[in-house]
Amino acid sequence: MSRSEFAIIESYFADMGPGRHDTLLTIGDDCALLKPAADKAIAVSMDTLVAGVHFFEDVSPAKLGHKALAVNLSDLAAMGATPAWFTLALTLPELNEPWLDDFAAGLSALAREHQIQLVGGDTTQGPLSITIQVHGLVDPGKAFRRSAAKPGDWIFVSGTLGDAGIALQNKLGNLPALNLTAQDWQFLNNRLECPTPRNDLASKLLGPVKSAIDISDGLLADLQHLLDASRVGAEIDLSALPLSSALQKLPGNTAYQQALTAGDDYELCFTAPTEHAPQLAEEFAGEITCIGKINDSGKLTLRGLDNELGLSINRAGYDHFS
Amino acid sequence: MSRSEFAIIESYFADMGPGRHDTLLTIGDDCALLKPAADKAIAVSMDTLVAGVHFFEDVSPAKLGHKALAVNLSDLAAMGATPAWFTLALTLPELNEPWLDDFAAGLSALAREHQIQLVGGDTTQGPLSITIQVHGLVDPGKAFRRSAAKPGDWIFVSGTLGDAGIALQNKLGNLPALNLTAQDWQFLNNRLECPTPRNDLASKLLGPVKSAIDISDGLLADLQHLLDASRVGAEIDLSALPLSSALQKLPGNTAYQQALTAGDDYELCFTAPTEHAPQLAEEFAGEITCIGKINDSGKLTLRGLDNELGLSINRAGYDHFS
Repeated sequence: MSRSEFAIIESYFADMGPGRHDTLLTIGDDCALLKPAADKAIAVSMDTLVAGVHFFEDVSPAKLGHKALAVNLSDLAAMGATPAWFTLALTLPELNEPWLDDFAAGLSALAREHQIQLVGGDTTQGPLSITIQVHGLVDPGKAFRRSAAKPGDWIFVSGTLGDAGIALQNKLGNLPALNLTAQDWQFLNNRLECPTPRNDLASKLLGPVKSAIDISDGLLADLQHLLDASRVGAEIDLSALPLSSALQKLPGNTAYQQALTAGDDYELCFTAPTEHAPQLAEEFAGEITCIGKINDSGKLTLRGLDNELGLSINRAGYDHFS
Repeated sequence: MSRSEFAIIESYFADMGPGRHDTLLTIGDDCALLKPAADKAIAVSMDTLVAGVHFFEDVSPAKLGHKALAVNLSDLAAMGATPAWFTLALTLPELNEPWLDDFAAGLSALAREHQIQLVGGDTTQGPLSITIQVHGLVDPGKAFRRSAAKPGDWIFVSGTLGDAGIALQNKLGNLPALNLTAQDWQFLNNRLECPTPRNDLASKLLGPVKSAIDISDGLLADLQHLLDASRVGAEIDLSALPLSSALQKLPGNTAYQQALTAGDDYELCFTAPTEHAPQLAEEFAGEITCIGKINDSGKLTLRGLDNELGLSINRAGYDHFS
């Protein structure tokens, strides 16, 4: 691509998201200049999506634009941080204006919804790849930390688990024929390609909730990260795992396998102390589900349907799994 | 690559750069938490290097690690911001431990030199590509801005120009045989592969200097960006351009062509008002060179050697060039 073609690409991303009073300088200088309020910390996270690895090359560019930002917003949600700014490194094999139009539309719609402003980045030529860094603002004393779970805390997850995993395994041809409707598949594929980051929920949990992680690698792997950081154990009641109506139609081992080990749902897993947990369960009924409790065993134990389901979870993949 | 292979990759980047009292949380949670001093703005910039586009695939991984951070540090220098934190998105085709060792060593050495801490990022599998975002701290009233040049200001550049351009053109086979020594080529190749960002100089210029840009796309293109942002013109004296002893041995048109249009030297171009400029010229003699002055013509004019050299500069590449 020529220099002028890159100028065209950059025109797609000018003025994306809201103007903000704390943005002193946006795209157009060597750096953006950001001035957070004096009492806030900045939460930063960066994620890359590579074509053929993290998404299918033929995915809708609008959904890809949405997802590239959504997976990063999910990291802000896991800290309880309010989205503020993002940067975009976009590597494209060629100038494809209809593709860029759709990609920018998907990205921009989610940016507006979360009031996050694009303040910089880089456009380069090469194999299709998208790196986004998000910046959020949070009271440092209230930020959720993986290390803050305590024995006795209730463990919650938002939404339902395993939906994106089933959609992915189906696209990869790894599933037998399943008795699902076209509407079920639309729901599941949308969960994979167009995840909803839980920032709104996270903002309402600040205070009572001290510890959280987003489920990007699967419940067991991500919960284990939280347990390791907090030096605690947990007992999970499999029968309590929230499954969508689509997953409830599937054979139990297929559904629970994905609910426990598949990422890409971008739900939150968080803990709350017993003095707040029942009230949260009531206040956010339908949005969050208690799936177990933190204990001091140092181990993650599954009870409930484990034997009955005959799950074949690759525990070797999770080093500290017991 | 498997999950455990990625864990290995991430181990190369743990604890890179200094610990900082204003880093509340580093690698290991969903986000890093950064708490800049209340009177500072955060300057952020992101640059991507793609194999086969921005570097030769056989480049020394240590130099690549250095350069990936250097080009970003250069953007902080262009704002007068002090390096503080960086994030790294590294996409690798395969796990190659000797390569990672060298890459991390080059990156780490420059990070330590500039006291910039790695606080997050992402490692993914795919075609080799490196995206780094840097975060610097600056008094918002003192930050250099492209838009702050005024008629009468002296225009300075740091170091020498065109060295990296000659090295690149030579590697691409675009140059005739040149009468340079092995030592000259070592110097020139090092300027291309291992640039020195001018952060130390920039920190000493805060106050008298109001406007700056780093020369990543070539003096003419980058100076034009500064002129456009400031809505001013400039006259450049070609005979004043600082050339290294290696470039002084070359035919004038070859040397000046690269000095004017080649990027990758990562020198600074900045302006200073007449009340401060002579003192800066004296204080930083040998480090910076006055190459011309800002005026209100709205145009960038070259004088000096222009006709004599018979330069064939593609002015069409710079839209507002006159």
